[in-house]
Amino acid sequence: MTDLNETHDPTLSSWVDSANGAETDFPIQNLPFAAFRMAGSDEYFRGGVAIGDFIVDLAAVASQGIFNGLAQDAVNACAHEDLNEFMAMGKPAWSALRLSLSKALRTGSGDQFTLSSCLVAQADAEFKVPCLIHDYTDFYSSIHHATAVGKQFRPDNPLLPNYQWVPIGYHGRASSIGVSGQQFSRPLGQLKAPDADVPVLGPSRRLDYEVEVGIYIGLGNELGEPVSMVEAEDYVFGLCLFNDWSARDIQAWEYQPLGPFLAKSFASTVSPWIVTTEALAPFRVPFTRPENHPQPLPYLTSDANSAEGSFDVSLSCLLRTAGSDIENPLSRSSFKYSYWTVAQMVAHHTINGCNLQAGDLFGSGTQSGPEPQEAGSLLELTQGGKHPITLANGETRTFVEDGDTVIMRGYCEKPGAKRIGFGEVTSTVLPVRWSPRSGSVH
Amino acid sequence: MTDLNETHDPTLSSWVDSANGAETDFPIQNLPFAAFRMAGSDEYFRGGVAIGDFIVDLAAVASQGIFNGLAQDAVNACAHEDLNEFMAMGKPAWSALRLSLSKALRTGSGDQFTLSSCLVAQADAEFKVPCLIHDYTDFYSSIHHATAVGKQFRPDNPLLPNYQWVPIGYHGRASSIGVSGQQFSRPLGQLKAPDADVPVLGPSRRLDYEVEVGIYIGLGNELGEPVSMVEAEDYVFGLCLFNDWSARDIQAWEYQPLGPFLAKSFASTVSPWIVTTEALAPFRVPFTRPENHPQPLPYLTSDANSAEGSFDVSLSCLLRTAGSDIENPLSRSSFKYSYWTVAQMVAHHTINGCNLQAGDLFGSGTQSGPEPQEAGSLLELTQGGKHPITLANGETRTFVEDGDTVIMRGYCEKPGAKRIGFGEVTSTVLPVRWSPRSGSVH
Repeated sequence: MTDLNETHDPTLSSWVDSANGAETDFPIQNLPFAAFRMAGSDEYFRGGVAIGDFIVDLAAVASQGIFNGLAQDAVNACAHEDLNEFMAMGKPAWSALRLSLSKALRTGSGDQFTLSSCLVAQADAEFKVPCLIHDYTDFYSSIHHATAVGKQFRPDNPLLPNYQWVPIGYHGRASSIGVSGQQFSRPLGQLKAPDADVPVLGPSRRLDYEVEVGIYIGLGNELGEPVSMVEAEDYVFGLCLFNDWSARDIQAWEYQPLGPFLAKSFASTVSPWIVTTEALAPFRVPFTRPENHPQPLPYLTSDANSAEGSFDVSLSCLLRTAGSDIENPLSRSSFKYSYWTVAQMVAHHTINGCNLQAGDLFGSGTQSGPEPQEAGSLLELTQGGKHPITLANGETRTFVEDGDTVIMRGYCEKPGAKRIGFGEVTSTVLPVRWSPRSGSVH
Repeated sequence: MTDLNETHDPTLSSWVDSANGAETDFPIQNLPFAAFRMAGSDEYFRGGVAIGDFIVDLAAVASQGIFNGLAQDAVNACAHEDLNEFMAMGKPAWSALRLSLSKALRTGSGDQFTLSSCLVAQADAEFKVPCLIHDYTDFYSSIHHATAVGKQFRPDNPLLPNYQWVPIGYHGRASSIGVSGQQFSRPLGQLKAPDADVPVLGPSRRLDYEVEVGIYIGLGNELGEPVSMVEAEDYVFGLCLFNDWSARDIQAWEYQPLGPFLAKSFASTVSPWIVTTEALAPFRVPFTRPENHPQPLPYLTSDANSAEGSFDVSLSCLLRTAGSDIENPLSRSSFKYSYWTVAQMVAHHTINGCNLQAGDLFGSGTQSGPEPQEAGSLLELTQGGKHPITLANGETRTFVEDGDTVIMRGYCEKPGAKRIGFGEVTSTVLPVRWSPRSGSVH
């Protein structure tokens, strides 16, 4: 786990005024990373750090040469289009750069003049997926989600026997992961109604979002060398917001026996900002297993994990219909409910020798809380489409409609710490590109 | 489909003598691609093409500048460490380079003197995975495998209802794919005996190979733009041999409800050589669905697919025990039995808008034939470990033991065409790295 240090001091303020408001996601205690360029330009993307309403252009900072040693090496690595090289440098480099940026952005810093020439307004920027994601793994770490979904298929036996033992995960599709603002066409796929004899090809009618936390791997491990629970968090660079779009009807027909495939691979959306695990240090909490649940096997336990293995990241999900400005709240939850911790995901993923690489992404799985209104998907909120929800404009939704934008936000707050935020991840569903007359795709 | 052209002429011979033998895998009609360097050196890897016992060093050829136009552009792209750039150039470039190499390597070619300075003996070379594999998808395309495995779990209902409609596939782990010669430690994982109350951590005791064909994507498609059956093969660069290592006991406990994960991600092995679809043109055959099976949905049909959608690649699998030279034959089969064709895999994978990228790898799924002795895994050959097979030295095997090397070979032959081969893919299982006394990993 990461100890608190001077960068977490809640009394720190910045000479960037907008970083000092009570409601900003990006105070000087946060300093999350992204890859950005001026919107609409053909500039190279490069690394940036959020401060208030601005981005610190790390390529510009690198060229100033104002940092020393490891911090300067680290900022040099952030001048590239992808953050992989920086992520692969490991915790000492991540911490050194964080500390140097914290000092340079503080009120009264002697670097204010130099750094202010490296600021870009977030409103003027566009973002990309911040690194090359080599492999993407999706976990299934909310027991509340697993139970609620299981109930729809197996009312008497919702949770499968392996759930309390195995941090269930599966490989996902990396190529179709986009950054916030992603727009994608409603997916086509094979659909088979329960009472139909044969499937048909058609646009998904049960298109759903999943509120997830994304977890970026920094340090990689060698093939054949499992990562222990004690080391696991050294391999984790930071967290983001993640919408793991899912076509429930495609999934229902295709997923036996090898799991979800085309039901997921048409789009998934990450937030631009990666909040580092170091920034999240004040918001660590223990996860307490219910007393009647088995304790995890030894390779999934450590003292630190028991003491403060979880991250208390508040998550909210909202929906905006086409042409409207109204954000309809759908649910709120927290990553603290996750049945499996990030460290357990890393230790489990590598126990067979699987090698992680810098830039790998884990999805946490849908983060539903214990209460029904904390459900992280429409599948749960509408109980499989049986109970539509009503929006502010009187429309109803069982699943996501064309033109809908789904918005997820995240933040951490607690007494005695400065509130930090994740920004948001939005994505919009466009109509299917398909000619039903001809039955053909074009 | 690819038409035959002068490069397929079975009467062509090469000034490289070893390319003209009846038994060589690499006559001038083949010309498969790999990434290689001198064994044990710290040279950069670069593209190479096999001819007899030699490799044409494509970086060396590129620097000679002897080809024209697109063929020279193509060979320039092959000078890089990964073949992705060349693969992304598409069929016209692949064909142009093939034709130029065919001409330059023919008996009597005026380029003999120049090209002979670009030859490296295969015996002196080492290989790597020939491209950056962005995403790896494993299909399940042998109905004989699916039925045989299904029978072990559901004797009365072996084949799930979706099998004859959906080319079942799932996302796999790209990072742990290695090239022939891969050695890996027996994976650790959670194991739960059927009669046990709780799982334990231990080395897999049911470690198995899977005889598969690997399919490399060349051309990519844009997110949201499905590839039709008519275009599908334009996106496919070529085929290789692929061993999809599987830990059956880990899989049995973890795979519900989201599919295989750690049971597969510890190692998978590709052959060094990619045989292009153009080289395989003489070996295309129709696949005839049994009469009582439903016809595929229209997005999975085309005239060309019906006429010659399959590849008749003969596959064999052998096992060598530690310290022995004896290759024990395990099974023989052919890719022609695949229930779904490569074109159908591409069309299905993209029907939801999923984007493929140059260098993506598909596994075909275990290629078992209709007869029991044509099974592509020990799970099938030993009926789940119940019927051990006996090796030449008197040892028996239910699953793969430490020190065993599994060897797969592939070739195509038919009257009127020159036989071409895939070379081989070998991989060796090392003992688990684990201390059972401490229960810890080290």
